[in-house]
Amino acid sequence: MKVLIVFAHQEAQSFNAALLARSVAELTALGHTVRISDLYAMRFNPVATAEDFGARRFPDRLQYDREQKYNLQHGALSSDIAAEIEKLLWCDLLILQFPLWWFSVPAIMKGWIDRVFVNGAIYGSGRRYDTGGLNGRRAMVVTSTAAYPGMCASDGLVGALDVVLWPIQNGMLAYAGCKVLPPFVSYSVNFVDEATRHRYLDDYAERLRQLETAEPLFFHPLADFGEDWRLKPGIAARTVGQGKPAARRG
Amino acid sequence: MKVLIVFAHQEAQSFNAALLARSVAELTALGHTVRISDLYAMRFNPVATAEDFGARRFPDRLQYDREQKYNLQHGALSSDIAAEIEKLLWCDLLILQFPLWWFSVPAIMKGWIDRVFVNGAIYGSGRRYDTGGLNGRRAMVVTSTAAYPGMCASDGLVGALDVVLWPIQNGMLAYAGCKVLPPFVSYSVNFVDEATRHRYLDDYAERLRQLETAEPLFFHPLADFGEDWRLKPGIAARTVGQGKPAARRG
Repeated sequence: MKVLIVFAHQEAQSFNAALLARSVAELTALGHTVRISDLYAMRFNPVATAEDFGARRFPDRLQYDREQKYNLQHGALSSDIAAEIEKLLWCDLLILQFPLWWFSVPAIMKGWIDRVFVNGAIYGSGRRYDTGGLNGRRAMVVTSTAAYPGMCASDGLVGALDVVLWPIQNGMLAYAGCKVLPPFVSYSVNFVDEATRHRYLDDYAERLRQLETAEPLFFHPLADFGEDWRLKPGIAARTVGQGKPAARRG
Repeated sequence: MKVLIVFAHQEAQSFNAALLARSVAELTALGHTVRISDLYAMRFNPVATAEDFGARRFPDRLQYDREQKYNLQHGALSSDIAAEIEKLLWCDLLILQFPLWWFSVPAIMKGWIDRVFVNGAIYGSGRRYDTGGLNGRRAMVVTSTAAYPGMCASDGLVGALDVVLWPIQNGMLAYAGCKVLPPFVSYSVNFVDEATRHRYLDDYAERLRQLETAEPLFFHPLADFGEDWRLKPGIAARTVGQGKPAARRG
C-alpha cells in the first residue's frame, strides 16, 4: 500500500514523533511505501485566502469553494496545495496523526483539510461519502490525549469518542470517500509511565499489521438517503452516540 | 453586556459579513458594548509554536500547554495572544461566528482557540466546565452552512447538529466555563434566495434581543462526575445525539 501520513506535532522529542517513527519503520518493514506531510516542519500555511488562487472565476467576491474548483480545473491552485493534492490522490491509506486539542485537530491540520480537500477533486457535483473523490482509499485517525479512557465513555467527562471524532471521521474522511478504520488513541499520555508509552508504540505497530484486514467503521452510503437527505424508510439509523450508554457502576 | 465577536470570514461582501454588521447594529442599539476579533482582517496566526513563548520552563522539549501556563504567569506570551486573552476575559458574551467547514470551524478560528484558550487562565489545575476560567460568561455559535436543515437531523446526511457541534459547544465553550446558548444556524446559504437571507438577518437580530433570557444548553457540571470521571450513579446521562431519532417519514 501507498501510505500518506499527515503529521501535526511541533516537537521532535515528543511521544507523537516516536509514534510516527515507529509507524514508518513498521509500514516500511511490511512492504508499504510511506510519504509524510510533516505540517509544522513544512511550515504549512493553514489559512484559506484568495492568495490560494492564481485565477478567479468571480473576481469581485471570494467564494472559496467555487474558486477551488475553478483553479483546480485551470491548474492555478497555489503550489503548496497542488503538491498535497498529488500526495493525497497517490495514497491508498491516509493517516491523520495529531494530538487531540480542544476535541479536534490542531489548527495547522484543520487548514490542511480546508485547503487540500478541494471542491472538484475530493467532493462536489453531488459526489460524497462512497461516491467521494477519495473513494477506494482507507483512512485512519491516530491521536493522543491527556484524557483517561473513562472520560471518553458516553457518560464520561469528554463524551463518547465516536461523537468527539464525528466531524473528523464522518465529516472529513468518510464524506471525502474514505473507508475509515477504527482510530488508534493513546490515552493520558501526559500521565502514564515510560513502560505504558512503549506499550502504546507496540500496540500501534500491531494495529498497522492489520491495516488490510481491519473492518472499517460504518457510515451510511449515499444511496441510503432519500431526496430529503434523510435515511430512507426501512434503513436503520446510525448509532453514533446513540447506542446504549456505557455500563454504569454502582 | 460586553460582547466579543470572533469572526472568521475573508469576504467583506459575504452573507457572514452582513450577519456581522447586523449583529453589531442590533447589539449596540440594545445598549451592549461590542468588540470584534476579525481574524482574517487581523491576519491572525493560527499556528501554535514555540515562537508563542518569550520564556521557556522546559527549553529542551516543547510542551505547549505547560509553556502556556508558565508564560502567562511570567507575562511572556506572544503579544497577539495576550491581546486576545484580554478581550476574552473582558467579555460577558463570546460569539464565535464562522462558516461551517468540514463540520467544524475554519483553521484560523481553531488556531484562535488553540493559542488563546491558555492553560492557567481558561482551564488547568482541575478547573473546567462550571469551574472553568470563563465561568460566568455566555457563549454562542453563529454559523452558516450549505447543508439543508433535513441534513442536520439525527437521520440526516450530516447528522444531528448537537453531535456535529459537540467538540465546539462542549469541548471548547462549555469546557472553558461558558454557559452555551443555542446556536444560530443559517442553512443552505448558497442556495436560498435574497428574501430568505434577509429573513436570516432578522431572525438573528431577534435572537440577539433574547440573549439575557435565553435558556443555555445543558452540559453536566463537574460535580456530576465521579472520581473515575464518569457520571455518578443516579445522574441521568447526557442526551446529546442519544435522543430519539428525528421522526421518520413513510
